[in-house]
Amino acid sequence: MTMKLTSVRIVGSGLIGTSIGLGLKSAGVEISFFDSDKSAQKLAQDLIGPPSSKDPDLVIFAVPPSALPSLLDSEFALNPASRFMDIGSIKIKPTVEVTSSILPGVRFCPTHPMAGREIGGAQSAQGDLFLARPWIYSPHGVDPDVVEAVLSVIKILGADPIILSPAEHDRAVALISHLPQIIASLLAKQLVGAPHEWLQLAGSGLRDSTRIAASDPQLWREIISANREEVLPLLKNVEKDLLLLIENIDHAESVSAFISEGNVGRARIPGKHGGKAREYTKLHIVIDDKPGQLAKIFDECAQSNVNVEDLNIEHSPGQETGLITLYLSHEHAEILQQHLASNGWKVHKPG
Amino acid sequence: MTMKLTSVRIVGSGLIGTSIGLGLKSAGVEISFFDSDKSAQKLAQDLIGPPSSKDPDLVIFAVPPSALPSLLDSEFALNPASRFMDIGSIKIKPTVEVTSSILPGVRFCPTHPMAGREIGGAQSAQGDLFLARPWIYSPHGVDPDVVEAVLSVIKILGADPIILSPAEHDRAVALISHLPQIIASLLAKQLVGAPHEWLQLAGSGLRDSTRIAASDPQLWREIISANREEVLPLLKNVEKDLLLLIENIDHAESVSAFISEGNVGRARIPGKHGGKAREYTKLHIVIDDKPGQLAKIFDECAQSNVNVEDLNIEHSPGQETGLITLYLSHEHAEILQQHLASNGWKVHKPG
Repeated sequence: MTMKLTSVRIVGSGLIGTSIGLGLKSAGVEISFFDSDKSAQKLAQDLIGPPSSKDPDLVIFAVPPSALPSLLDSEFALNPASRFMDIGSIKIKPTVEVTSSILPGVRFCPTHPMAGREIGGAQSAQGDLFLARPWIYSPHGVDPDVVEAVLSVIKILGADPIILSPAEHDRAVALISHLPQIIASLLAKQLVGAPHEWLQLAGSGLRDSTRIAASDPQLWREIISANREEVLPLLKNVEKDLLLLIENIDHAESVSAFISEGNVGRARIPGKHGGKAREYTKLHIVIDDKPGQLAKIFDECAQSNVNVEDLNIEHSPGQETGLITLYLSHEHAEILQQHLASNGWKVHKPG
Repeated sequence: MTMKLTSVRIVGSGLIGTSIGLGLKSAGVEISFFDSDKSAQKLAQDLIGPPSSKDPDLVIFAVPPSALPSLLDSEFALNPASRFMDIGSIKIKPTVEVTSSILPGVRFCPTHPMAGREIGGAQSAQGDLFLARPWIYSPHGVDPDVVEAVLSVIKILGADPIILSPAEHDRAVALISHLPQIIASLLAKQLVGAPHEWLQLAGSGLRDSTRIAASDPQLWREIISANREEVLPLLKNVEKDLLLLIENIDHAESVSAFISEGNVGRARIPGKHGGKAREYTKLHIVIDDKPGQLAKIFDECAQSNVNVEDLNIEHSPGQETGLITLYLSHEHAEILQQHLASNGWKVHKPG
């Protein structure tokens, strides 16, 4: 149940708005941007081409939560016959705000694409940002033609449409998005006064667990404040668990039970390609760290007719070697390992 | 100041012991394993080849902290003329334990390679595990020939030797390794009872920040218990910061200050290739998701004579396209982008 979109107006030209614009444009939809920051608007519009001259089939609010209320009236006044959706990180608040605006609730569909980056702005936008990512929408009580427009956007951008009520959405993202943000920031904050030499020892564990701590404070202050009702009980649970660990740190059994429960929680997260977590077989190859080596390896992959699902590269500063790790199905890993070994590559056994 | 190693005895055939064995073996050092778990010992020895028949130049303790004390006496009794080192995650405790053993303190050098994986066992071992990673050692009061043997191991394995006293080591790893482990487990633990549907929405933020929560509870219980003196004040700081956030969650300024401090801490962590954090330029390429595409891209890289520093692959289940992100120097990214665009690739502007 989708519809043909001809012209879309995107209000807000940050990372998400511009990424939506790039993706829709490549499917032939005409895009016009509006942003109160005119230089941001120009950058996004320049990335995409001349603005649409047609009335918009759909208006997408891609602004921080605090900017939405004042825009609901002005945008509806401009295009009263259009359809409306938002993409905000919280969903109850905008739903309530619509009821206080002149925009009829039936013409507005709350949505939230589960995609983003720790860096923002139009310059970071990617038309493929939403590929294979969940895109939550709340169609209850919304006119069918508005829902169809929303589904068209989600489909064009290659995302997976998922229905959740605004209330359940806000509970879910408090746990899987807002809490991880706060905890990563909490951990990163502990590094502020540490000796430089200690940080030189940091490995991928610290790096990965603090990556999202680089996120935008202004945006996150709005998200956390707006979703405080759902976030607060989670923070209190964390504090309770932390206090319990502190009290029992001398009981080795309590410490291992704590780490074990983390194992259980971690195992529930699906893998990076969505759906259930997939287990790939790893193939380690030590290469000379110079241009062309990767190309040769992928030539070998193509000759063996195997498909590489993912890969990782580790360099060794000051050394002539690097380590490539390929992730393949177990069967393909076996095939490729034999092929590479017989062609003189320093390849380890699959594992 | 290194020495030629001929034969090394490795006590403990887990991930670290076996990885050391693989790396030393490939440099021509003969290796014999000892493990109280005979099937683990056999697996490691099989991976490496026949055990050394010579007296060991060096004995490496690669066992969990709890197993060390009883081994100090028995290993010294077996090879009283040898040299000794450990690789444990804490350093004051083994140093103290040596003073209560028959092994003279001057013949034992405490060390700790800053490398590991969230999965354990000989089957996960990699001879390149230590490449370009820091390897801490505490040579104070240790005989020069023992220190030389340690430096030989570190050099052969391609690691960076770094001198720290046992006390400073334990303080540093409490912050950069033990605290992140506890915080990742604490976050992952919150997911235990969550609805399956919510976890399906998880993105890379939650995945990355909980990766190390998959680590071994028994090993970590030993590490945390043994380093409680250093870990506990850090946990209390975290609890204080968390309480403060909970109390001030209605003050938007406090929330953004909290996220900002996380920004500052995060920015202090060096990049994955060691040294100072390097900023690469990203090049996004949309490809058909089929064998051979990566090989073609790397052929183009070789033709352009550019060096790819890292890359990431995102698949889109149920779609025919994938997204490759290449990380290069800014100059190389510009060169490659023009080259790829002129050869018909769907390549985005560098950013």
